[in-house]
Amino acid sequence: MTAKLFVCTTCRAGEPVTEGQPVAGARLYAALAAAPTPENVTIVPVECLSACSNGCAVALSAPDCWSYVYGRLSADDAADILAGSVAYAATADGLVPWRERPQIFRKQSLARIPPMER
Amino acid sequence: MTAKLFVCTTCRAGEPVTEGQPVAGARLYAALAAAPTPENVTIVPVECLSACSNGCAVALSAPDCWSYVYGRLSADDAADILAGSVAYAATADGLVPWRERPQIFRKQSLARIPPMER
Repeated sequence: MTAKLFVCTTCRAGEPVTEGQPVAGARLYAALAAAPTPENVTIVPVECLSACSNGCAVALSAPDCWSYVYGRLSADDAADILAGSVAYAATADGLVPWRERPQIFRKQSLARIPPMER
Repeated sequence: MTAKLFVCTTCRAGEPVTEGQPVAGARLYAALAAAPTPENVTIVPVECLSACSNGCAVALSAPDCWSYVYGRLSADDAADILAGSVAYAATADGLVPWRERPQIFRKQSLARIPPMER
C-alpha cells in the first residue's frame, strides 16, 4: 500500500517571517524531500493543514486506513517522520503498534480520523 | 453527499472521571444524538480521535472531501456542530466558505487532511 505524507509548507511555527528565508514548513518539506524517498510513501506538499497553533504539521493517509496528523515538528524530525511513515504504509488499517511508532508520533499526535469506509 | 461526523465518546476533556457519570465525550455524543439528525449527516461514535489534550473532539469526512477535526468542544456546542456539519455536507470538496462556518469551526480547528484522491 502507498501512503501519502502531506506536509504543510506554509507553516510559520510561531516564528517571525524573514523575507527571502523559507518558513519552518518549507524547511521541513525540503528536509523530507532531500532524504531518500521510502518505497510506498509519497510526499505531498500542501498549503495549510489548519494546525497553525501546533505547527509544523504533517498528515498521513492511505486507502481504508485511519489518517493521522502530527504537530510541533521541525526539519530535525525528518528522519523520524519518514521512518514512521514507512511503518504506517506497512499496515492494512493505519494502526501501527504503539512501540513501533517513533516517539514524535507517540507524543505529538494532534488527531486521527477513521477510514472513510468505516 | 453524506458526511460522517465522528464523535470521540471516550474523551475526558481534562475532567476527573466520576464513577457512574458519563465522561464529557459521551455527553457530547448524547447531545448530538438527541438532536434531530440532519439530512446528509451520519453521526458515528468512535473511541478515540487522538486529540486528547484538546478534547472533546469531532471529525468530519466525506468522499473526495477535505476532512476536518475540531476540538475543545462540549455538549453545549451540539447545535453549532450540527449546523457546521450540514454546511460541510453541502459542499463538493469539504471547503465551506469561511463566513458560513460556525465560530467554533473557525476558531477551534485542530487539523484538516486533504482528500484521498488528491
